Amino acid sequence: MQYIYEHNIQYYETDKMGIVHHSNYIRWFEEARGFAMERAGASYITIEELGYVSPVLSVEVQYKNMMRYGQTAKIIVEITKFNGVKMEVAYKVLDKETNMMCCEGKTSHCFLDGKHKVISLKKEQYDIYQRLLEMVD
Amino acid sequence: MQYIYEHNIQYYETDKMGIVHHSNYIRWFEEARGFAMERAGASYITIEELGYVSPVLSVEVQYKNMMRYGQTAKIIVEITKFNGVKMEVAYKVLDKETNMMCCEGKTSHCFLDGKHKVISLKKEQYDIYQRLLEMVD
Amino acid sequence: MQYIYEHNIQYYETDKMGIVHHSNYIRWFEEARGFAMERAGASYITIEELGYVSPVLSVEVQYKNMMRYGQTAKIIVEITKFNGVKMEVAYKVLDKETNMMCCEGKTSHCFLDGKHKVISLKKEQYDIYQRLLEMVD
Amino acid sequence: MQYIYEHNIQYYETDKMGIVHHSNYIRWFEEARGFAMERAGASYITIEELGYVSPVLSVEVQYKNMMRYGQTAKIIVEITKFNGVKMEVAYKVLDKETNMMCCEGKTSHCFLDGKHKVISLKKEQYDIYQRLLEMVD
Repeated sequence: MQYIYEHNIQYYETDKMGIVHHSNYIRWFEEARGFAMERAGASYITIEELGYVSPVLSVEVQYKNMMRYGQTAKIIVEITKFNGVKMEVAYKVLDKETNMMCCEGKTSHCFLDGKHKVISLKKEQYDIYQRLLEMVD
Repeated sequence: MQYIYEHNIQYYETDKMGIVHHSNYIRWFEEARGFAMERAGASYITIEELGYVSPVLSVEVQYKNMMRYGQTAKIIVEITKFNGVKMEVAYKVLDKETNMMCCEGKTSHCFLDGKHKVISLKKEQYDIYQRLLEMVD
Repeated sequence: MQYIYEHNIQYYETDKMGIVHHSNYIRWFEEARGFAMERAGASYITIEELGYVSPVLSVEVQYKNMMRYGQTAKIIVEITKFNGVKMEVAYKVLDKETNMMCCEGKTSHCFLDGKHKVISLKKEQYDIYQRLLEMVD
Repeated sequence: MQYIYEHNIQYYETDKMGIVHHSNYIRWFEEARGFAMERAGASYITIEELGYVSPVLSVEVQYKNMMRYGQTAKIIVEITKFNGVKMEVAYKVLDKETNMMCCEGKTSHCFLDGKHKVISLKKEQYDIYQRLLEMVD
């Protein structure tokens, strides 16, 4: 299941090369992931209100084409794996106007309780587990 | 009492104009303020460990000369007023090499307890109050 | 003439106090200003394509109420003064849901040519000058 | 050849989880890389003055342990491959005080001329090519 999220590129996201600084794509991944999880009924806010946090375990990004101020990034986001303990998410970033592929990436995540111990959402929050699982292909 | 703090300007702090994005000076103010408070024996970490936070109430910045990647910002920081409840801090940002004045600014701050209620450090933490007071001219 | 711009608050905009870091409001001001100028037919992109840049001369912010992840910031933006050389812009940031005032601010700007010399848009780009002027009350 | 770069973790680098936001490590990689290249006599500033830019092609990060405000990140940086066209850099981020491994990562880079065409530093700037090559194990 794919979600499409749009981000308008901001001036403060550019650097002196005249393009978007590469660190910002990782922030857009977070925006897109949060958007998708909210749509699926398992928002970060809900997860944190239940007493959990979901840190990032890894990030991978391939930069294909430079993006610039004024463009809109169209981000296709998809949960690719989820077993309750570890969640993997994939991203494609395209220029909205031309559909040119600009960037591809992956992130992985776990879930921690209030004592920062790894937990299984399958065991602790079956409802949220199922909602996230339904997002996986 | 003035403290001097140095910040090496980073590539990710620039924007497509080729200069430091103006929002970063506010972040450097925070760096310089934290540095000065630590030197005075009243670090943010100590204040937060005691159960308080210190949000920013206001910011004022005048940008005089553009700064660029590769320069070192020399920040002269000074607590200008403090009565235990409200703290005012002033900043001058110079190019370290030429001493050219690039930016001037002010911030003001209060202190909140764990319930986000405004408190007086004079009443609640006299030691820290005195250390900060000693920094005022 | 007032424009209303909305910004969804992102996780990466928060800090360890659990609230939006104060430096981000300055970035939202830039977003809102760019949005308003584009609506008025005088976008940054157009201005930069014509060979000019528009640096920030000053920033003033009063923080009234903390904002948090998940809120939408409703930013009311208005050009308050403009004579072709200097432009002043005012901002009010409200929580979209409750209309609570969270932050107020002002910025001022000039326009530079390719050699970073201050210019008058009234003299050099009368069309853009008029469009911006029409935005002033 | 390994270089060690230190970064004092800033308040504005934290998020509401109370830890460093994961996007900042990518920025520290850039700081460490710039530091190492400067030490080797092939700084970004020199490369850009010669008319080239060096965009990031890919980023990989594994987050091992959370880092917090007040810690100093000790970043061990190393150019692992370089043929004049493509440069690969590896990073280890440790807590300076305890030497605990917190993060590992890799980036890859190319070099572009003023028309954004990929070039070989070996052909175009043999001096810089050699300095970077000497940094490779």
